[in-house]
Amino acid sequence: MAGLGAGLPEVAPKELFVHHVLFYLKNPGSETDRAKLLEGLNKLAKVPTIRMVHIGTPAATNRAVIDRDYAFSWLCFFDSPADEETYQKHPIHDEFRNNYASLWEKVVIYDAVGPKRS
Amino acid sequence: MAGLGAGLPEVAPKELFVHHVLFYLKNPGSETDRAKLLEGLNKLAKVPTIRMVHIGTPAATNRAVIDRDYAFSWLCFFDSPADEETYQKHPIHDEFRNNYASLWEKVVIYDAVGPKRS
Repeated sequence: MAGLGAGLPEVAPKELFVHHVLFYLKNPGSETDRAKLLEGLNKLAKVPTIRMVHIGTPAATNRAVIDRDYAFSWLCFFDSPADEETYQKHPIHDEFRNNYASLWEKVVIYDAVGPKRS
Repeated sequence: MAGLGAGLPEVAPKELFVHHVLFYLKNPGSETDRAKLLEGLNKLAKVPTIRMVHIGTPAATNRAVIDRDYAFSWLCFFDSPADEETYQKHPIHDEFRNNYASLWEKVVIYDAVGPKRS
């Protein structure tokens, strides 16, 4: 956490760009479709401007406010909005859309900018 | 990325628990309410089992599939589901709910488990 060193200057945490996509499949019960989308996400992870990526499925937690209907959570960090724009326009991203978009019924996206602390 | 070292054994990436909360304010135009919720989130960030936290606001990206209506994105990583459960039951979390829940109209939560790669 910043500010622990009393007397030291405060250093603002670095701003990071979070891109979180929830994928909802047309056939959520199809293991074949799930495996295919996961294959696509693993290819997409190779876009070089991605700083960090987390590919997840719904956790066991279950409360009314928790959405558990998506098939995959695709969460990436970028160092800047420019890096995320490069990702959106990258040939690997085009290929992902072209080859796998037929699998999903909808996506929900949250793009958020702010400091990261660890 | 795993598997780059040909001939080396594959090491499965570590599973991490992602907890992503989107906060929608009752008074989204109130700078006072926004500042108060941010104050609460900064206190909440002190729960010791949080491995990493990112506090964000909507980025400038704007497409139909991108939700830009939330006031704050609260994204944390935990080393395990047990660590996330500890966070949910921590006194700092209780205090957060007690002191700040009146500010939001709703929250949307995604809990996802899977490997992280950087």
